Amino acid sequence: MLHQQVDPKSPRDILTRGINASPGAATGQIVFSSAAAQDAEARGEPCVLVRRETVPEDIRGMHASVAVVTERGGMTSHAAVIARGLGLPCIVGASGISIDPRNRTLRAGERIFREGDVLTIDGTSGEVLAGAARLLEPALDDYFSQLLDWADGIRRIGVRVNADTPSDARTGLRFMAEGIGLCRTEHMFFDEARLPAMREMIFADTAEDRMLALERILPVQRNDFLALFEIMAGRPVTIRLFDPPLHEFLPHDRDGMRELAESLDLPLSDVVRRVEALTEFNPMLGMRGVRLGITIPEIYEMQARAIFEATVAAARKGISFTPEIMIPLVSVGREVELVRARVDSIAAAVRNETNTQFDYRLGVMVETPRAALRAGDFAGQVSFMSYGTNDLTQMTYGLSRDDAGRFMGKYVGQGVYREDPFHILDQDGVGELLSIGLERARGEARHHGLGLRRAWRQSRSIAFCLRIGVDYVSCSPFRVPVARLAAAHETILAEVEEAIPAESRPRS
Amino acid sequence: MLHQQVDPKSPRDILTRGINASPGAATGQIVFSSAAAQDAEARGEPCVLVRRETVPEDIRGMHASVAVVTERGGMTSHAAVIARGLGLPCIVGASGISIDPRNRTLRAGERIFREGDVLTIDGTSGEVLAGAARLLEPALDDYFSQLLDWADGIRRIGVRVNADTPSDARTGLRFMAEGIGLCRTEHMFFDEARLPAMREMIFADTAEDRMLALERILPVQRNDFLALFEIMAGRPVTIRLFDPPLHEFLPHDRDGMRELAESLDLPLSDVVRRVEALTEFNPMLGMRGVRLGITIPEIYEMQARAIFEATVAAARKGISFTPEIMIPLVSVGREVELVRARVDSIAAAVRNETNTQFDYRLGVMVETPRAALRAGDFAGQVSFMSYGTNDLTQMTYGLSRDDAGRFMGKYVGQGVYREDPFHILDQDGVGELLSIGLERARGEARHHGLGLRRAWRQSRSIAFCLRIGVDYVSCSPFRVPVARLAAAHETILAEVEEAIPAESRPRS
Repeated sequence: MLHQQVDPKSPRDILTRGINASPGAATGQIVFSSAAAQDAEARGEPCVLVRRETVPEDIRGMHASVAVVTERGGMTSHAAVIARGLGLPCIVGASGISIDPRNRTLRAGERIFREGDVLTIDGTSGEVLAGAARLLEPALDDYFSQLLDWADGIRRIGVRVNADTPSDARTGLRFMAEGIGLCRTEHMFFDEARLPAMREMIFADTAEDRMLALERILPVQRNDFLALFEIMAGRPVTIRLFDPPLHEFLPHDRDGMRELAESLDLPLSDVVRRVEALTEFNPMLGMRGVRLGITIPEIYEMQARAIFEATVAAARKGISFTPEIMIPLVSVGREVELVRARVDSIAAAVRNETNTQFDYRLGVMVETPRAALRAGDFAGQVSFMSYGTNDLTQMTYGLSRDDAGRFMGKYVGQGVYREDPFHILDQDGVGELLSIGLERARGEARHHGLGLRRAWRQSRSIAFCLRIGVDYVSCSPFRVPVARLAAAHETILAEVEEAIPAESRPRS
Repeated sequence: MLHQQVDPKSPRDILTRGINASPGAATGQIVFSSAAAQDAEARGEPCVLVRRETVPEDIRGMHASVAVVTERGGMTSHAAVIARGLGLPCIVGASGISIDPRNRTLRAGERIFREGDVLTIDGTSGEVLAGAARLLEPALDDYFSQLLDWADGIRRIGVRVNADTPSDARTGLRFMAEGIGLCRTEHMFFDEARLPAMREMIFADTAEDRMLALERILPVQRNDFLALFEIMAGRPVTIRLFDPPLHEFLPHDRDGMRELAESLDLPLSDVVRRVEALTEFNPMLGMRGVRLGITIPEIYEMQARAIFEATVAAARKGISFTPEIMIPLVSVGREVELVRARVDSIAAAVRNETNTQFDYRLGVMVETPRAALRAGDFAGQVSFMSYGTNDLTQMTYGLSRDDAGRFMGKYVGQGVYREDPFHILDQDGVGELLSIGLERARGEARHHGLGLRRAWRQSRSIAFCLRIGVDYVSCSPFRVPVARLAAAHETILAEVEEAIPAESRPRS
């Protein structure tokens, strides 16, 4: 209902069927790389990104595309997960096609397609179609809006949007999100204009050099935030400080390193050594989040300054609000103390420089089991806590989402896991940690949000949030309407349960 | 007291100082690779393994060496951790030397050393010495033995040894360990004689081909177990089923892949593709432990058969005992059900084939937060539960031990972590999960062991184990005497605490 669809009456020239990883349909020219996708977008031409599988660096290419197809991967592969988040039609595991990225050809049986040829991706059925099929616009009509309005009158749990870009924020707002529950700031650093400064920062030997590099990112980042603040017009915006490991910003192949060495005017061996030194055995469990924030404090300082300067700029345009700053991957209370001290002093400096008063709220992202168990250590220091169900699930199970794909099918098939815990919130394990966290923080932290990026599909997850006392859920833009409906649905069910004694209820 | 030491009166030709990662001293010829270490051992020549840093494949080289030095790494680096486990003198982060593995030279200032030159490693002081210093033998004298005997009369907690090899088992027994608490079986597969069969198994396309490859490993593995059973002579032996990800058994460089392609008679591109397909983003959180056991059941079946056949062979030699089989990395109860069904049927088959009765005990390794939270789901199905504090710490903090080295110094220095949680058990977070696990499994699982590999240093950890009701701790062979003393010490303290009301105790 919320996406374009292939007109059922349109003829279909089916090349292959893959896994329907993200619904909706789109038509565009084939591109084989993220760079080509960005070029196509710059030319205003819709494109379909075609890859064997996607990697984190492809995020910009995915942003620039209207649909994604991968030869490999399953429902939990990188492409599938990111595409669902972006609301992009996506087909993964399309093993009937064979992609040759070097020669930029896509082969389907005897047929060969090249860059620029047109495909239609039907992410709802999983069909890859040759040429431009006829598409129907999404039916976001008045009846649907009316239904959502009724839902909003009933539900007792907030719905925010995960938005990193103005376009995400606008979509969320169009679907009546009450604020931004999660603004990830790292994608902003992958932007081609900023990546060189980011890399200079990584290669800097002193705090001064790091600050010089970051000063070049500051104005761009400030504009990123100001744009979001303007769009959200006073609604809450939760910004998560920089989270990913630094090696994600470095090239991993020889050619990329050679280019980087030239641009930084360093010997290739230095670049290779630095890349190797930053490589991690388990990046998920490595030097990221607050660990980076404490070890290289200049990054968070720059981000805090960008947030506060954007807050002042917004105030001067008549938008008054209190930004929410969230610290990722905490596991001990002292991490928050250290970051808070620095952010406080940046706030004082910006107030002083701009002669403007503003407030801010500090919060933590609870995504390690230890953070949930020790929620009481954080609660007194912060205004809010937001529960990241994705990382928390990975750590509680000891299971990387990116690596689980290889056996998840077998595991769910044999009933080892009743359901994929990255799709349906594991109430017994992860859920217990969430309740423990909420219980131990209650009365201290003022509000509690829960990321529903992956668990959104089931209204059961929302029911669980209601039960444990989460104030709002936050999900990707295209999930907002569904979350509003599910929240209302579950609120009604909960009220029915309260009103009717268990023994007189019909069995479900 | 338990290791050789450099005679304080001996002259010292100090090349550099590094981090004293594992105590004791040893003299040997320099080798730059694990292969050279194994060659030296085969020739009966003591050698010192010298590496920039060690990787899991170096385990055999470390076993073959009398000491280890690495240019990089900290107290929690691979080399440091493994060396402590093996009781090998080890210096890490010896940045004053520069190793060129290709040309096989070690440079210290102006001086250059080559393969075969002699070094003395003083792991107690962290000094790398040129030539052979005079060494003093460990003072494991009668007084010490008497002290340990007294300790054994007092302590209320068992002490077992982590032993993968006959040599470890003998050392543990010499130090009076009461059994093997953890026998890791994967090192057995790295043995040069078995690695080819292991790789054939990995490359097999069908279950039949996998079984054919594993059948070649079976007799060797059976002998491994029989040797341990004979040494332990009826004392308990807990064998952990295969745990590591398969890619650890594959070469990662081009040369190694080419060799492997030749030996398997496969195109190089096939080998490269398979290696790539098995590569994981986060191996710690990937396809390992029971996930491998369920996805490729032939491995566990072979291991169960080897254990049972060795049990029968031991019985025929007059050693009667009940082997304990432990399933690693569980997170849901159904994993145990599936493995148990297969192991039971292998047991029945071996009983039938050999016409011999034997029993076995099945247990789980609790090392994911979820396993601790859901301990009640496992307890009814198993005879014992063993708590792996190392992995549990990694997952509870969301922190990989291998990657933590880069910031751990800063973190402990700034008091972010009061102590390195890989050295001192984190009672507040990991400890709570351990108590929850024990609490929820009590009365069901018959006994509870706790791995103290990393947390052994502080008797506080033993005190904690006493408090939460662990039956025994298991540690590396050279830690056994210390653990016995600490256990007695803490037992006395606990009894004092029980006997004297808190208000009349002196303040500590």
